[in-house]
Amino acid sequence: MESKHVAVIAGLGLGSVAHGANSVKALLDEINAAGGTAAPFPISSYNTTDVNTAFAQIRAHYQGQPIRIALYNAVHGVWKPFLDITPEDIQAVTQTSIEGTFSFSKNVIQAFQANQVDEKGKRGSLIFTGAALSVRGNVTTSTFSAEKHVLRALSQSLAKEFGKQNIHVSHISTFSKCSFLATDCNDPEQEQNEDVRLSPDGIAESYLHLIKQPHSAWMWELDLCPAHEKW
Amino acid sequence: MESKHVAVIAGLGLGSVAHGANSVKALLDEINAAGGTAAPFPISSYNTTDVNTAFAQIRAHYQGQPIRIALYNAVHGVWKPFLDITPEDIQAVTQTSIEGTFSFSKNVIQAFQANQVDEKGKRGSLIFTGAALSVRGNVTTSTFSAEKHVLRALSQSLAKEFGKQNIHVSHISTFSKCSFLATDCNDPEQEQNEDVRLSPDGIAESYLHLIKQPHSAWMWELDLCPAHEKW
Amino acid sequence: MESKHVAVIAGLGLGSVAHGANSVKALLDEINAAGGTAAPFPISSYNTTDVNTAFAQIRAHYQGQPIRIALYNAVHGVWKPFLDITPEDIQAVTQTSIEGTFSFSKNVIQAFQANQVDEKGKRGSLIFTGAALSVRGNVTTSTFSAEKHVLRALSQSLAKEFGKQNIHVSHISTFSKCSFLATDCNDPEQEQNEDVRLSPDGIAESYLHLIKQPHSAWMWELDLCPAHEKW
Amino acid sequence: MESKHVAVIAGLGLGSVAHGANSVKALLDEINAAGGTAAPFPISSYNTTDVNTAFAQIRAHYQGQPIRIALYNAVHGVWKPFLDITPEDIQAVTQTSIEGTFSFSKNVIQAFQANQVDEKGKRGSLIFTGAALSVRGNVTTSTFSAEKHVLRALSQSLAKEFGKQNIHVSHISTFSKCSFLATDCNDPEQEQNEDVRLSPDGIAESYLHLIKQPHSAWMWELDLCPAHEKW
Repeated sequence: MESKHVAVIAGLGLGSVAHGANSVKALLDEINAAGGTAAPFPISSYNTTDVNTAFAQIRAHYQGQPIRIALYNAVHGVWKPFLDITPEDIQAVTQTSIEGTFSFSKNVIQAFQANQVDEKGKRGSLIFTGAALSVRGNVTTSTFSAEKHVLRALSQSLAKEFGKQNIHVSHISTFSKCSFLATDCNDPEQEQNEDVRLSPDGIAESYLHLIKQPHSAWMWELDLCPAHEKW
Repeated sequence: MESKHVAVIAGLGLGSVAHGANSVKALLDEINAAGGTAAPFPISSYNTTDVNTAFAQIRAHYQGQPIRIALYNAVHGVWKPFLDITPEDIQAVTQTSIEGTFSFSKNVIQAFQANQVDEKGKRGSLIFTGAALSVRGNVTTSTFSAEKHVLRALSQSLAKEFGKQNIHVSHISTFSKCSFLATDCNDPEQEQNEDVRLSPDGIAESYLHLIKQPHSAWMWELDLCPAHEKW
Repeated sequence: MESKHVAVIAGLGLGSVAHGANSVKALLDEINAAGGTAAPFPISSYNTTDVNTAFAQIRAHYQGQPIRIALYNAVHGVWKPFLDITPEDIQAVTQTSIEGTFSFSKNVIQAFQANQVDEKGKRGSLIFTGAALSVRGNVTTSTFSAEKHVLRALSQSLAKEFGKQNIHVSHISTFSKCSFLATDCNDPEQEQNEDVRLSPDGIAESYLHLIKQPHSAWMWELDLCPAHEKW
Repeated sequence: MESKHVAVIAGLGLGSVAHGANSVKALLDEINAAGGTAAPFPISSYNTTDVNTAFAQIRAHYQGQPIRIALYNAVHGVWKPFLDITPEDIQAVTQTSIEGTFSFSKNVIQAFQANQVDEKGKRGSLIFTGAALSVRGNVTTSTFSAEKHVLRALSQSLAKEFGKQNIHVSHISTFSKCSFLATDCNDPEQEQNEDVRLSPDGIAESYLHLIKQPHSAWMWELDLCPAHEKW
């Protein structure tokens, strides 16, 4: 992994799980302090035009350096009773999970196709982050589960369509009642207990593993949960 | 099943699998000839407004008679290499599979909630028609598989959220290389061979079975394929 | 369904869910009172020899009349912490779930192969009864889940291998915290509440549906649960 | 990973995929040449007594040093038409997949329970190797699929029962028409092409990843296939 450039496409203020400007800035600062070069590419919606524009900016900013790794984790994240879901919720879910997912993936696949196969037998790694809801719907999760199912379906289609071009597409389902993002699990004791909560560093190890896998043995799908989780 | 009224919401001219005006008319004629009363409610898009309008028209037309059965089978049906998918394809898939599915379901669930529990222990039956692609993505099926995964995810969420109100939501996956709709399977010999192709009547028997199931033993999910299919 | 003969192969005294002689007798009496002809074929183990002997007795008793329907529901049913499982438990599970399942199925498939295809396009129906544990293991269910997974795996292999001979093999997963067999759910109120418990009659309707399905649209796998079950 | 001792329990001459004495010796030689210490513990059957004896020998040989990693990959491997399966096949499958799997796992879990939690938050790693057939039966695979389903069911039960004791149980499904063991894929060109065949080294990287995962983000189940496999 000679390159250390990181482009962060962030839909600031979008979605109910707020990944606000402050948290993006903290992420960029951390990467830059660690010796990488990170730059933000904010978008105001996940529609095709905005996503395409962000990729054009990234290419300009990094002067056409190859993209070899792409992570997709956008989520609108509505948790509400089905009958309370509004047309605006649907619109937001739709943009995130269909327009955003498809246009992001198209830009990434095309960028990967321009790459040489590397020493691991790979042109690039595209990783989607799913959830328990990627495989199982539940009460009050209809929109969230729908968008997570879209991610998983798309990851499977892309893995099969582009595997023979040595493009590695995979899907991680994270299972945890108490993730590092969860706002309903803010018991300070729980928050520090890595037996019961997914930690960002723990998740990152499996992302790195996927990225480094040799072409003779790729994963498409895997799950991650803390040791004590009974999922 | 005392009632014989049928309302057909049809997106005429929408989608690549053309369910044109002629086939809707043929369906209505067949129902009316068999002693039922069928009426068409054409919509020009699957967006929330149009679907809500169709339901308002149905309520007016049938003067508030209860709705007890609802089938959802809309599909945009793009089969093309991932990189050829256009923003217009995405838009159409989105409307069909998210806006259409959610707004149709919302109208149906609300109509069912107004019903009494019948002698089978049920307020109503909502059946989604899926496909092999509801459980497995494949090459050139990214949009089709995405929309079918949305249906399955939503059916699962609704089954759990509204089962305790005695509303029965289920999902049928049809598996067949040679369905009655397939245009790529028009070998006349195959077309007549019910060992290898799904027939509408065969499928209908399982729809009816779902509708008549007593509340002590409901199916959520089932698959249908012809006897010789190796799916 | 012109024939009304029923052969009950019962492993009396086997397994921890006691299907004792009394319950078999009650079943036979009920069938005979309803105008059928039912006879018991007790076996003292589920090993290949005993199962083969029972089928030989059935053929002799019914003088070679065709077998068209076969249901397999044997289960050893140990629910205990993994470390408490004894070699005797393993032996019992093994006989029930592997020897019994395979030898029962072999006798049935061979009997079906001798049949003509009936008016529904079918030589015979073999139905396996599974459970939630057929698709998902859990704490203290290691042996039960293992044997139920064997059933499901075998049903899938047989469905594909013998479907093209018009033999219909299917698998029913029953999901219910409170089934009609459960001894831990004997609250009298619950026992009568078909919103929360699977009833034998409800299950039977779906068995009958499977048996009568036309060859153009067979189910391989389906689930059954009461309306209020959140499975 | 300070320890380098390896105990190989090998059922010499068992099963149709011959792991003969020569291949075990080659494996031991390779480990010893690389600076490890490997010893063989041959068994003449996978029954509970023989497996328990092997573990007793291992404990004696290594003087009670802790066991921290255990891999289970025994398979009887019959691929034949269902009706050709003999009682001897069933017996062999049964010993491998139920007796062997359960008694191996019991010895391993008990050994892990005696360990301290290590710096990764783990008492030990038990990894089962499955196959595509762990999730999907097929023609002529009835026994193989049954035994692989048992492995997966058991791995899921154990993961849930012992996760809260910080014991990590996982299951790898390998998907490849052309694995390194396959005898039907001996085209020399294919044999060297890691785009189409699973390589032992590639698989080993994911085993190592599982073993090193921190307790905040464990995988239970993952699949491995070569880049060009369309699984």
